[in-house]
Amino acid sequence: MASIHDVPPDAFNYVWDNSIEPALEIESGETVQLYVRDASDEQIHKGSGVEDVAKLDFSHVNPVSGPVFVKGAKPGDVLEVELLAFEAKDWGWTAIIPGFGLLADEFPDPWLRISEVDAAAGIVRFGDKVTLPHRPFPGTLGVAMPEPGEHSIVPPSRFGGNMDVKHLRTGVRLFLPVGVEGALFSLGDTHAAQGDGEVCGTAIETAMDVILRLTVRRDFAIDAPQFHLPAGAEVEDARTSFHVCTGVGPDLMECSRNAVRATIAHLGDRYGLEREEAYAVASVAADLRIHEVVDAPNWVVGAFIPEAIFEGGR
Amino acid sequence: MASIHDVPPDAFNYVWDNSIEPALEIESGETVQLYVRDASDEQIHKGSGVEDVAKLDFSHVNPVSGPVFVKGAKPGDVLEVELLAFEAKDWGWTAIIPGFGLLADEFPDPWLRISEVDAAAGIVRFGDKVTLPHRPFPGTLGVAMPEPGEHSIVPPSRFGGNMDVKHLRTGVRLFLPVGVEGALFSLGDTHAAQGDGEVCGTAIETAMDVILRLTVRRDFAIDAPQFHLPAGAEVEDARTSFHVCTGVGPDLMECSRNAVRATIAHLGDRYGLEREEAYAVASVAADLRIHEVVDAPNWVVGAFIPEAIFEGGR
Repeated sequence: MASIHDVPPDAFNYVWDNSIEPALEIESGETVQLYVRDASDEQIHKGSGVEDVAKLDFSHVNPVSGPVFVKGAKPGDVLEVELLAFEAKDWGWTAIIPGFGLLADEFPDPWLRISEVDAAAGIVRFGDKVTLPHRPFPGTLGVAMPEPGEHSIVPPSRFGGNMDVKHLRTGVRLFLPVGVEGALFSLGDTHAAQGDGEVCGTAIETAMDVILRLTVRRDFAIDAPQFHLPAGAEVEDARTSFHVCTGVGPDLMECSRNAVRATIAHLGDRYGLEREEAYAVASVAADLRIHEVVDAPNWVVGAFIPEAIFEGGR
Repeated sequence: MASIHDVPPDAFNYVWDNSIEPALEIESGETVQLYVRDASDEQIHKGSGVEDVAKLDFSHVNPVSGPVFVKGAKPGDVLEVELLAFEAKDWGWTAIIPGFGLLADEFPDPWLRISEVDAAAGIVRFGDKVTLPHRPFPGTLGVAMPEPGEHSIVPPSRFGGNMDVKHLRTGVRLFLPVGVEGALFSLGDTHAAQGDGEVCGTAIETAMDVILRLTVRRDFAIDAPQFHLPAGAEVEDARTSFHVCTGVGPDLMECSRNAVRATIAHLGDRYGLEREEAYAVASVAADLRIHEVVDAPNWVVGAFIPEAIFEGGR
């Protein structure tokens, strides 16, 4: 059995840049362990208050572990990332960061929630009123872009990066287009739970150890990330009842905003959540879906609130 | 036990207009049966060929049964629509209609597929290669807008209408804001199966008898449609494996288009589907989800292809 190759814990970066020296070089098909720092790069800690959000230094956020050079990977190939295991820490943070998030204009003040992550029980305790299923995944997985120089770590691209796809859990295979020789794979921004959309801009942010297998594929070609979910991967999170708030209109972004605004109002009316907490709950638990995108000029986006996260909910 | 009130089969309309005379008047909480014509208004039949798509008369499409006047409903109230039962016909149609659909520019020619709907077996036979789960729902459910005059039946609005929300199945409760006295509820565009997005513009289009209960609610207020899914409603469709193609970029509409373009390419490569059939399969089976809408300037949309619809798929 092949050994697991470690990416050294001190090998992390704050930008995409294909001139960064590899932290590790492996053969295609080998297994790698990464020790991933949280998205605040340890600026927020277990005892933090809202003042630590207010003074966040954005020159070092979203550190990504790596890069890993995969021998033989060439531009035009596909890098398969098989997600094998996540080892969670016992806490995570969720913040509303001024200027960031889907409703940034409506939430100008910093806000912070420290949650307890109980991996053994399979739950995340998010305040008194909300218990989330523990669903660890990396928010950022990507390969270096062919364009030279430094590129912001914040936006994703067709080479992956900060995609925040909550479905990239154990057993899932992610496919990334290779942009440069060796692929130069990096990973960061690990989350203990998140809704599709990550609407307030943060999830249950937590450091995590990650084990995965990297394999070069040449039997198909892709222009942007694709992934494969094994049978049953989505079942557990489908068992709950859902309340769904829709947004209807001519712009998918504004539809999404209206669906989230309605979600915040609903969570306030129904469960007594403050506006900030409701926005954060939408971010860590509610899923955005596009129901209709053809009946011009108006589209429909729905925000799915899983009711099992509330006490007495199913 | 209260009887079921029939909307007469000949009571249907091609526009929203709050001056249309009610076809039926009921008390809040009563049950209604509607005999819904297919979205082509019988212009497409079981023996149709593509020439019937080419000559579609758009002055009578998407007929909606109704309107139903619900006594006591006032502007500002909520109309609860509890979906009780659907009686499917034994066939349905799916078309690519020139000028309509998410990729209209790339699919200029009409295309048609007649599917066999086998409600007893719980399936829809969509050609030789694809078998869909039978998931009947109405694409159009709405109440009259307060603005006078005729309004197109095609786009949905905050009063509902042609929302094409595939989740509105038996056991689900839909909530609509009431815009005029009596609400004036209508329903049409019944589908035997559809993906979130309805990307080619049509689903498995089929006539259907629908039974539902209409109740005036005043214990909460809403600005746009909301709905409630009972526990377990989403489980069956979550059991399959999924292949997911993403679109990444600064516009959610273009992200959606790219995710669907990649889906069409994948379905061609993997299953040998022609481009038109692949586009139609994306429309009747693939779900669009918004994974990330905060990591400016790029967002991520995923198109989920359920692999159990293919022979040998799980």
